[in-house]
Amino acid sequence: MSKNEVAIIMGSDSDLIIMKDAAEILENFDISYDLTIVSAHRTPERMMQYALEAAKKGIKVIIAGAGGAAHLPGMIASLTYLPVIGVPIKGNSLDGLDSLLSIVQMPPGVPVATVAINGGKNAAILACQILGIQNNTISEKIEKYKIQLKNKVLSKASKLEKSGWKGYLA
Amino acid sequence: MSKNEVAIIMGSDSDLIIMKDAAEILENFDISYDLTIVSAHRTPERMMQYALEAAKKGIKVIIAGAGGAAHLPGMIASLTYLPVIGVPIKGNSLDGLDSLLSIVQMPPGVPVATVAINGGKNAAILACQILGIQNNTISEKIEKYKIQLKNKVLSKASKLEKSGWKGYLA
Amino acid sequence: MSKNEVAIIMGSDSDLIIMKDAAEILENFDISYDLTIVSAHRTPERMMQYALEAAKKGIKVIIAGAGGAAHLPGMIASLTYLPVIGVPIKGNSLDGLDSLLSIVQMPPGVPVATVAINGGKNAAILACQILGIQNNTISEKIEKYKIQLKNKVLSKASKLEKSGWKGYLA
Amino acid sequence: MSKNEVAIIMGSDSDLIIMKDAAEILENFDISYDLTIVSAHRTPERMMQYALEAAKKGIKVIIAGAGGAAHLPGMIASLTYLPVIGVPIKGNSLDGLDSLLSIVQMPPGVPVATVAINGGKNAAILACQILGIQNNTISEKIEKYKIQLKNKVLSKASKLEKSGWKGYLA
Amino acid sequence: MSKNEVAIIMGSDSDLIIMKDAAEILENFDISYDLTIVSAHRTPERMMQYALEAAKKGIKVIIAGAGGAAHLPGMIASLTYLPVIGVPIKGNSLDGLDSLLSIVQMPPGVPVATVAINGGKNAAILACQILGIQNNTISEKIEKYKIQLKNKVLSKASKLEKSGWKGYLA
Amino acid sequence: MSKNEVAIIMGSDSDLIIMKDAAEILENFDISYDLTIVSAHRTPERMMQYALEAAKKGIKVIIAGAGGAAHLPGMIASLTYLPVIGVPIKGNSLDGLDSLLSIVQMPPGVPVATVAINGGKNAAILACQILGIQNNTISEKIEKYKIQLKNKVLSKASKLEKSGWKGYLA
Amino acid sequence: MSKNEVAIIMGSDSDLIIMKDAAEILENFDISYDLTIVSAHRTPERMMQYALEAAKKGIKVIIAGAGGAAHLPGMIASLTYLPVIGVPIKGNSLDGLDSLLSIVQMPPGVPVATVAINGGKNAAILACQILGIQNNTISEKIEKYKIQLKNKVLSKASKLEKSGWKGYLA
Amino acid sequence: MSKNEVAIIMGSDSDLIIMKDAAEILENFDISYDLTIVSAHRTPERMMQYALEAAKKGIKVIIAGAGGAAHLPGMIASLTYLPVIGVPIKGNSLDGLDSLLSIVQMPPGVPVATVAINGGKNAAILACQILGIQNNTISEKIEKYKIQLKNKVLSKASKLEKSGWKGYLA
Repeated sequence: MSKNEVAIIMGSDSDLIIMKDAAEILENFDISYDLTIVSAHRTPERMMQYALEAAKKGIKVIIAGAGGAAHLPGMIASLTYLPVIGVPIKGNSLDGLDSLLSIVQMPPGVPVATVAINGGKNAAILACQILGIQNNTISEKIEKYKIQLKNKVLSKASKLEKSGWKGYLA
Repeated sequence: MSKNEVAIIMGSDSDLIIMKDAAEILENFDISYDLTIVSAHRTPERMMQYALEAAKKGIKVIIAGAGGAAHLPGMIASLTYLPVIGVPIKGNSLDGLDSLLSIVQMPPGVPVATVAINGGKNAAILACQILGIQNNTISEKIEKYKIQLKNKVLSKASKLEKSGWKGYLA
Repeated sequence: MSKNEVAIIMGSDSDLIIMKDAAEILENFDISYDLTIVSAHRTPERMMQYALEAAKKGIKVIIAGAGGAAHLPGMIASLTYLPVIGVPIKGNSLDGLDSLLSIVQMPPGVPVATVAINGGKNAAILACQILGIQNNTISEKIEKYKIQLKNKVLSKASKLEKSGWKGYLA
Repeated sequence: MSKNEVAIIMGSDSDLIIMKDAAEILENFDISYDLTIVSAHRTPERMMQYALEAAKKGIKVIIAGAGGAAHLPGMIASLTYLPVIGVPIKGNSLDGLDSLLSIVQMPPGVPVATVAINGGKNAAILACQILGIQNNTISEKIEKYKIQLKNKVLSKASKLEKSGWKGYLA
Repeated sequence: MSKNEVAIIMGSDSDLIIMKDAAEILENFDISYDLTIVSAHRTPERMMQYALEAAKKGIKVIIAGAGGAAHLPGMIASLTYLPVIGVPIKGNSLDGLDSLLSIVQMPPGVPVATVAINGGKNAAILACQILGIQNNTISEKIEKYKIQLKNKVLSKASKLEKSGWKGYLA
Repeated sequence: MSKNEVAIIMGSDSDLIIMKDAAEILENFDISYDLTIVSAHRTPERMMQYALEAAKKGIKVIIAGAGGAAHLPGMIASLTYLPVIGVPIKGNSLDGLDSLLSIVQMPPGVPVATVAINGGKNAAILACQILGIQNNTISEKIEKYKIQLKNKVLSKASKLEKSGWKGYLA
Repeated sequence: MSKNEVAIIMGSDSDLIIMKDAAEILENFDISYDLTIVSAHRTPERMMQYALEAAKKGIKVIIAGAGGAAHLPGMIASLTYLPVIGVPIKGNSLDGLDSLLSIVQMPPGVPVATVAINGGKNAAILACQILGIQNNTISEKIEKYKIQLKNKVLSKASKLEKSGWKGYLA
Repeated sequence: MSKNEVAIIMGSDSDLIIMKDAAEILENFDISYDLTIVSAHRTPERMMQYALEAAKKGIKVIIAGAGGAAHLPGMIASLTYLPVIGVPIKGNSLDGLDSLLSIVQMPPGVPVATVAINGGKNAAILACQILGIQNNTISEKIEKYKIQLKNKVLSKASKLEKSGWKGYLA
């Protein structure tokens, strides 16, 4: 039985360039994760099996990324009581609007927690926030992470204020 | 075993007001059909079973209507080698764009034959055209139907030409 | 100190007609909740205070609904390490697209778990799924709820199959 | 008389880079096909003649690709009782939305089976599914094709699970 | 042989409620016109014949209105050297965007002079402007019409300035 | 010579139902204003004259509302050095997107301060903020107005917290 | 006094790369033309003067191209009784939708004959069609031009039919 | 205490490439300015403090640029009675539509003066226009700037008229 609490799945290996951002965040937060490809349209049985077994394996949150007519997050959500986070992946046309609407506009009863287009990183942070509800270690790390974000901005702000825009861009 | 060659399925009974147009066309063409509700998100196992058994039951074309994040047509298509016709249903927001994109933007390998938003009637005509390939009785009916469409237009055109717009609208 | 685990907040009382769907779900799941109005643009200090105190009060998930340039969910998310669920509310123009994009397109580091436009009900179900991770009573209720959804569909499907569309619509 | 069962037509030779994907699929499925350019706007008489003769030549399915104000698929559909598959081609502006809407939003009576933007491959697979209704050789090939798609995903999934994302991307 | 210089055609009699605005303007300008229904999709041969004969009958400008996947204006334009004015008609979904894009995004070589969604009146004024190039009586009427428009605005402006908004709206 | 510091102009008297919101706000802030109709397309000379004379008359801020291809705000801005506030008015199609883009997407050198679709009220508040820069009486009124807004929210929040959603909606 | 019958104007010299397509067509049709820059927002007086004098100079059709909040075509149309053809120019954001809507959605009374985004070539062909109403030499040239377009397609079609797609693309 | 009358703030240093255009304009107009980074989502307390102190420091106009779910301009506006100018920054998806709608669609009571997508330059010109109300030196500079804009167009127009498009583009 897996000890991983988060699953990161994607519809195609072409989505990995975005979904790796989720993996990196989880590594930074010392949260072990499953990472694999599950295609709603090419491996529907595998998808069903994956969704039905996830909770039994100990998974607590599922992150699913997909592009175009992105059905993976919503179908996973239909098959599990676990929270599912959906990442719309931008494809070659329509600038990501198709995957965003395919993921977010779920019918009553089956939500998908949708993040921004190509928002792999945010999907993982959201997963950490969810796990952090019952785990102080994680919630403290989120607080630290937020402080880091703040400090990076403050540092850049300070540099910009000192050097002006010409110096900053140079 | 069913003798029906066409299946009409929809994600919710609220879609019936549109999908009945498909049923009516098939009745007009003397094509018997299955008609039921199969929700991708509320009855995923039923959906899988329905899709996997459709060909065995003798179904040759599946018409699937759904709204919002409309996954039913694409998921059915992922589970059968039969042609699947998708009907985007307009919901309470975004004017049908969400269901259209969720149905039509399928990835390589798994097409859905998408018709217009709320196009239940056209879905059935397309099904008849597909069945008509191997069935002269049906293809002749399509030709007759097209002649009827033409004659209706000609008759209205004639009336408009004679009575002018004021008379026509009166 | 509040014993409520979920907070439902909204930018305006005109959003209540949607956000009450979230309250109803939580009541059905026997989860007590805070319910109030917090306007990002009219009561920014209150918003800040609310967000900063939520975790201390025992809140574990925050549901925030807003319309138009909907800043409330994202701003709350910037001020807490708790997971924030955003509900885009459809307004008088642009069919909800403005609030959807204002909520979902958050920058890296600060996710909002966005649900469908006017998806108050789904926001609450997602909150239950999140709480259910650590609470078997809740996760079992979700499973039962999903079975109810399934049974409603099966019952309607059965009725439609028996009565045909004319009978069903009559 | 042609023995080809599928026709692939396009509005301009600039569409060939997409429509060749349809030709390749048909070749893989050992289905012979017509391939030519038929412009609705530059060769309307040719278009009319092509559509009216297609069935007589033995064509059973017509695949038509076009961009911008894409009228070719719908006009062909108006002139034949054969099923017509439309491929919206993405042009230099509006990201393919113009051709998608010009093709899919057909009025009652004259459907076009629309596939994804730039979906030349899927158009051909859909044509095979349609022919497969009466031809077990083809429908078996589709099943094999779907198994290949599945196996490719499984193989990539296995590789990703073993090597992790850093190894996979390296 | 017709003496009419302008033809007003539409894809369906449901478009008449908009296209009658064009007829009214032409009547006000004392320009006689053809008015009929020509469906690109239901009467393609009639459409072709109509377009090919228009110039021979003495028609100088063709106004064509259509909704959804609106092919009529562009197809007429492909079949005649006369200028064609296209009127996008708003349908039941997508708020007119589908017909606008289907009409305006014509490929190089075959323009359609597109006016606003539901712009039947403006189509006729544009036709008058075109005829006015060679006909001083018409161009003078346009100048008078523009003065009338101006005077209506000036009169309303004067009333508003005098009575204030409360008085004006009362 | 007018003593009015703000001008409220609109392209048509049909816009008055929105633009009166601007007038009401200015009345509440005791700021006298010009209110009239100036159509960019029907009274272009009047528009030019109005814009060129506004500053001389003592006007300091111009609020201009228009719908559809809304040129009034941008053209006024091209003719004066005064700040111009644009109000996109929602028309019968495209849900206000056309007027929003026609007003906000001005080229470098000629800005229009654009507010929300149908945002007549906010246009006037923005005008007050601009005048408040040099007028403490006005800026203090804005602060009071903001406190009123806040208090209304607090009062409604309090009521909702006490009565619950059922009581509040009853 | 100018002998030019067509004027080609544009809002900025950055539009020339598109608008030169109009000039080239007119040269091919031996129609002399004015070509200059007239900015609605930077040179409003020049724009007004240009529009008011165009008819007096002998201009019969005005082609106006502009991007973003594209006001030039509509403002010119408001100032002359000549037909005005608008060319939406695609800018750096929104893929040309802003300029399309700013040009086409004109209010009743003041039409702009809008062509496709970046459709400089079609604007000139439309101008020729308009001039061709009273000039057989031009209308015959249009017929020849259409035959050339047809022949180019036929030649490419023939080549594609002979060489197949691999040969054609090679 | 700062003597700067304008503040230029942005959500991220990646916005600087656009927002520097605002700084350059202010420098050209000899208006001193604050320039820094204030992130609504990463430094909400700093944002609140900045907004609350701006008026006290002598700032009269705030220019705020942000991308995606762009909350900075609206939140600043909620916290000050100063006029706030919002600059939507185009990000990696949706072509700037998300930031435009997030900024412009503010609720009644809290306007943001929104300029074009990536319109950093226009934001600064608008700020100058606002300051120019009480400062003749600035308003005269705006008039001169407008004359420069006009002269540049006239000079380019003259060059194009003389050299023709081939010469101009060469």
